[in-house]
Amino acid sequence: MNFCSHCGARVASKIPEGDHLPRFVCTSCGMIHYKNPLLVLGCVPQWQDKILLCRRAIEPRRGFWTVPAGFMENGETMQGAAARECYEEALAIVEVGSLLAVVNVTHAGQVHVMFRAQLKAPEFAPGPESLEVGLYAESEIPWGELAFPSGEFTLRRYFADRATGPPAVAK
Amino acid sequence: MNFCSHCGARVASKIPEGDHLPRFVCTSCGMIHYKNPLLVLGCVPQWQDKILLCRRAIEPRRGFWTVPAGFMENGETMQGAAARECYEEALAIVEVGSLLAVVNVTHAGQVHVMFRAQLKAPEFAPGPESLEVGLYAESEIPWGELAFPSGEFTLRRYFADRATGPPAVAK
Repeated sequence: MNFCSHCGARVASKIPEGDHLPRFVCTSCGMIHYKNPLLVLGCVPQWQDKILLCRRAIEPRRGFWTVPAGFMENGETMQGAAARECYEEALAIVEVGSLLAVVNVTHAGQVHVMFRAQLKAPEFAPGPESLEVGLYAESEIPWGELAFPSGEFTLRRYFADRATGPPAVAK
Repeated sequence: MNFCSHCGARVASKIPEGDHLPRFVCTSCGMIHYKNPLLVLGCVPQWQDKILLCRRAIEPRRGFWTVPAGFMENGETMQGAAARECYEEALAIVEVGSLLAVVNVTHAGQVHVMFRAQLKAPEFAPGPESLEVGLYAESEIPWGELAFPSGEFTLRRYFADRATGPPAVAK
């Protein structure tokens, strides 16, 4: 950040009075510009005993596999964002279910929130951000080729929960 | 937003190619400036059979009661943010426990994430953003004077869980 988005003057990095961290502060109008973590929303779309995975067509981690997920937008619910990302990345329509995982991704300034989801039909195709999309049984998951640790955590939780019956949070 | 934070030129609101929503786009360097939801992190700090509440000294909802909570910062975990906010608002040191509630606050462009927490000692006092801080039993909660619906949802979940024994997610 170089310029104030409010008045267009230069910003400087300094600790505002009463604060504890350096912020970008406008040298003209004094506005403080905070940088906050971003929410990434995703889901594990299920069809019968299989789940839907996408192979990424974009960086970071092009060519690796992921659950459909992406940045939440203003005006959306978490569930709405998860369903939209699934449609954008896999052209698949889902009904979003219960909360599955909430993961700190501190080094990237992100929090990942993952839901269970049900595919409305076994219909899907790669969106512009995916090379390939498919349904996989637990034994077919490419564990060694997953794009992100949060996705692996999410999938391990998903299959662990499924092995012990209905999700604990719904008991 | 009026100016590009990267190059200082004017921004215009338009839908970038391949996108579906209007964004602030720089008229000079072309940078797209996204606005994303903010994470608010909080906790329900417990001491014996009571919980800690704060009466707000700042707007919005000055004079109303809340669980300690505030905007998560980059470089923090969710649990770290919840503990920091509790210290800033109530000068109280907590050990943050299990996840309690994740709430869409769509009209404000926020997601609120609330944890259970244990006070390390029954020591607290109003921080600069609080008029008053205290420990309250369930029967003493000022339900009619709570600042935010997400706080009420969180407290109702907290007491409902406590009434049925250990939290379901830890079973």
